Amino acid sequence: MNVGILYAGSDDRAGEMIPELLRALESSGVAAEVLRVPCDPAKVDYIVHAPNGPVVDFTPYTNVKAVLSLWAGVEDVVGNETLTAPLARMVDPDLTAGMVEWVAGHALRHHLGMDAHIVNPDRAWKPSAPKLARERKVTILGLGRLGSACARTLASLNFQVSGWSRGPKTVDGVRCLSGDGALLDALSGAEIVALLLPLTSETENIMDAEAFGALAPGATVLNPGRGPLIDDGALLEALDSGRVGHATLDTFRTEPLPPDDPYWTHPRVTVTPHIASETRSGSAADSIARNIRRGESGETFLHLVNRGAGY
Amino acid sequence: MNVGILYAGSDDRAGEMIPELLRALESSGVAAEVLRVPCDPAKVDYIVHAPNGPVVDFTPYTNVKAVLSLWAGVEDVVGNETLTAPLARMVDPDLTAGMVEWVAGHALRHHLGMDAHIVNPDRAWKPSAPKLARERKVTILGLGRLGSACARTLASLNFQVSGWSRGPKTVDGVRCLSGDGALLDALSGAEIVALLLPLTSETENIMDAEAFGALAPGATVLNPGRGPLIDDGALLEALDSGRVGHATLDTFRTEPLPPDDPYWTHPRVTVTPHIASETRSGSAADSIARNIRRGESGETFLHLVNRGAGY
Repeated sequence: MNVGILYAGSDDRAGEMIPELLRALESSGVAAEVLRVPCDPAKVDYIVHAPNGPVVDFTPYTNVKAVLSLWAGVEDVVGNETLTAPLARMVDPDLTAGMVEWVAGHALRHHLGMDAHIVNPDRAWKPSAPKLARERKVTILGLGRLGSACARTLASLNFQVSGWSRGPKTVDGVRCLSGDGALLDALSGAEIVALLLPLTSETENIMDAEAFGALAPGATVLNPGRGPLIDDGALLEALDSGRVGHATLDTFRTEPLPPDDPYWTHPRVTVTPHIASETRSGSAADSIARNIRRGESGETFLHLVNRGAGY
Repeated sequence: MNVGILYAGSDDRAGEMIPELLRALESSGVAAEVLRVPCDPAKVDYIVHAPNGPVVDFTPYTNVKAVLSLWAGVEDVVGNETLTAPLARMVDPDLTAGMVEWVAGHALRHHLGMDAHIVNPDRAWKPSAPKLARERKVTILGLGRLGSACARTLASLNFQVSGWSRGPKTVDGVRCLSGDGALLDALSGAEIVALLLPLTSETENIMDAEAFGALAPGATVLNPGRGPLIDDGALLEALDSGRVGHATLDTFRTEPLPPDDPYWTHPRVTVTPHIASETRSGSAADSIARNIRRGESGETFLHLVNRGAGY
């Protein structure tokens, strides 16, 4: 009998995602059919899930062996009390690659002071070589898959990289700090900070006035992680005063960012529309099919969420 | 007797360069004095030279053992018939590091399509994830110190990197082509091309209409090398038609770029003011002092220019 996979991601992505799932399942040797809502809940063995899809109440799906998130961030599902099956995060090498490219690109953009040349209405020829990367302190908050990959790449580009995480971690070439007591030390003097923490009750608003105050004056904030990691009022105040020189933000409390949000028009803010960590259908489907194959073989699932920790 | 070093770089840089030279010579164990024009030419053992400095006629300096260029590019001095002493190029790890950062940064900028977010008057939230670097072809023309270092870093960022040079070269992870017959092949389908060739009679205008036509439609041209590598008329035509999508130019036939130059106002051009390969005083002085120490010990000079080849 075929394994029943319920596609419960967004309708927008169904057209590209479902064929990729069928391909990946077939090449993993799993005989499966992909279902959509509405369907008989009893036939559903796995739910491929995104918070912007049709499944909010997991109660009817009594036979489900695992819920496989299409997203790396699970803060919108981890607290769902109707979900009792194991929950796996998306860990996708292409998602990691895209994140590393976004973070490295925007770090270099600010490091090199590119914007003054991209927008140069005065046609000013004022040669001034930037510091070298090895003279520039960069701090990454969060050293999971995404954060550690970004930290490694920035270190390979010769930046002075510090990383901070809740529990202790080790990343080659990166000064790793951990625990609440070390947060301000990790941020101290950083000229660029990138936020790659999971969103939990402990990390919400972690970038507050005190945290912004620990950065080097005029520092750059990159947020490709999750909008609520930032206390928006504190950031806007720090931007207004110049204490923070620029914020390049990819994630927001409300997405799409509302047209009247002050971030759109602030001269020290760049908005990117949640593109840093786009799930790419092919490799995401491979990752999901691999976990389903493991489940069907009685192996443990990869990338299970610790629901107590929230990620 | 002290070794006589004539500082013949620009007056602008003398204030920072001369103390660095004295420091570097002392730490190399060379007892030296640094002279300026006017001085007794017979006392000059080495000339530290830039084309924007005071020495154009080398004839009076009959005792000179070597001319040590402050610049990586020697096209303005290599043809000087009054120069009979050995000529060494500047090879400076900091200059290489700065070049790599500029090239990697602007390659990622165009790869990620950053400009549409940096300048976004419509406040448009249109998520569209860029390709991954591994799906993007980048070609580097020139595989000397600077070109090969840039090629290696772009390959480490997962770009598909091809390199082209006059004679055969090997760079790990880079598809290396060489010789006139392979130029269009090296450019074929490239979405980003970076120009790091020395300027010689053979490389002048190497980027002409045919070369631009070989690139992928809408490709990006990065020129941190030398202005005359580009046929400016052909580039402007390719930009006007959209055949080339963007040019980010750091070097020009005339520098500073004249206020009425069409590059300043072209919507598809970014001008940076010759900052990609800034000579940094400390490491440049170390490089020069090392060569002087070699000369005083009877060793061969490093980085000698092949005056027939022109670089």
